Amino acid sequence: MSDKLVIPARRGKAVIVNAGQSIQVINTYGSQVVDAWIYNLHDLNEFQSNEHTRPTLLKLSFEPGDSLYTNKRRAIAEVEQDTSPGVHDMLMSACDTYRYELLGCTEYHDNCTDNLHSGLKELGFESNETPSPINIFMNIPWTQNGSLSYEPPVTQPGDYVQFRALMDCIFVFSACPQDILPTNGIRGEIKDAHFQVL
Amino acid sequence: MSDKLVIPARRGKAVIVNAGQSIQVINTYGSQVVDAWIYNLHDLNEFQSNEHTRPTLLKLSFEPGDSLYTNKRRAIAEVEQDTSPGVHDMLMSACDTYRYELLGCTEYHDNCTDNLHSGLKELGFESNETPSPINIFMNIPWTQNGSLSYEPPVTQPGDYVQFRALMDCIFVFSACPQDILPTNGIRGEIKDAHFQVL
Repeated sequence: MSDKLVIPARRGKAVIVNAGQSIQVINTYGSQVVDAWIYNLHDLNEFQSNEHTRPTLLKLSFEPGDSLYTNKRRAIAEVEQDTSPGVHDMLMSACDTYRYELLGCTEYHDNCTDNLHSGLKELGFESNETPSPINIFMNIPWTQNGSLSYEPPVTQPGDYVQFRALMDCIFVFSACPQDILPTNGIRGEIKDAHFQVL
Repeated sequence: MSDKLVIPARRGKAVIVNAGQSIQVINTYGSQVVDAWIYNLHDLNEFQSNEHTRPTLLKLSFEPGDSLYTNKRRAIAEVEQDTSPGVHDMLMSACDTYRYELLGCTEYHDNCTDNLHSGLKELGFESNETPSPINIFMNIPWTQNGSLSYEPPVTQPGDYVQFRALMDCIFVFSACPQDILPTNGIRGEIKDAHFQVL
C-alpha cells in the first residue's frame, strides 16, 4: 500500500495504476469534488468514456460492482467500494477557461481541464482529448422531467471511492477549483483531496 | 429552401449550414433515429458537445428555444421547432464496431461512428474526434433512481426538429443502423430520413 498522496487544492495529479491494483480516492475534508479520468497506459487514445459507459451500465451514475468502460467499450476499471452516500456525476464537462469567463472571471481561473493536461504532463504523457470526466462526490441531481442543478456535496470527511484497475491505467485527478457555484460546498472552499494505491 | 435531401438508411450525410440558415431533420417514416453532430465549419476542433451543453441548459435533453453549445461553450445552433413529442437523447454514444461485436455481430455492421466520418469525408472534411451525438428521436428514458433503457421512438411519420445555425456549421447525420436493440422500433427496420435547409 502506498502512502496517502495529495491531490493539491485547485490542482491536478496523475498516477499509474497497474492492472489488478486498486486505488482509493479520498474526500479528506468532506466537501471536495474530484474530477477523474482514466486512460489506457499503453494507448492514450483509449480512455474511460461516460457516453460509452452508460449504454452498458444503463445508469446515469455508478455504484460498487459496476465497471467503467472506454471509448473502445472495454472495461478499464471496476468500482470496488464507496463509503460515501454514492452521489457522483457523469454528466457535466470539466470546468475550463471558457466556463469561468462566462461566470464573470476576467483573469485566469484554475480549472479541471488544464489540471488534467498538467497532471498528465507531469508524468510525461499528453492527450489531445479532454474526455467528459467522472466527477467523484459531485452532486448534480436530476428530476423526472430532466432538470439538472448544481448542489453541494453530501459527503463526509474521509469518504472514499475505491476503483480496481482492469488494465494498466493512468488515473488523473483534479481537486476541482470551482468556487463560484456550490459544487464544492456553499462556502466555495477548495481543499486538498488524497489518493492511495493499494 | 433546398429540396428535401436524403439521409440514406444506415448511412451518413453531411451538409454545410451557414449562420442564420435553418435546417429541418425529418423523421420521414416515423421510427428512424438520426444521430447528429454539429461542427464549426471554420475549425473542426470546435463542435457541439453534450457535456458542455448540459451545464448551461441544466437539462438532460433539449426543447425549442434552447441553444446547443460547443466544447468552447459557444452557442452553435438553436432549436427552433420540434413537431415530435420531444423525446431525444443526449446521453448515449454513437454505435460503433465495438458495440456490434459485443452485441454478437461477427461481420462488419454499419454504425453511426463510421457514418459520421464518411459523411464528413464526402464533403472533404476530417475530424479526429467522435463527439457524443445528439440522438434525434431516440427514446432513452431515465428514472428517478438513474436507470436508463432503450425504447422504441415515439415519433410519427413526418415529425421534424428544426435547428438554426448560430455560426457557419457542418451538420452531420446518420440514419442509425441499430437493428438489434429497439432503438429504431421493435421490428428493427432501418429507414431513410431526410433534411431540408431553409
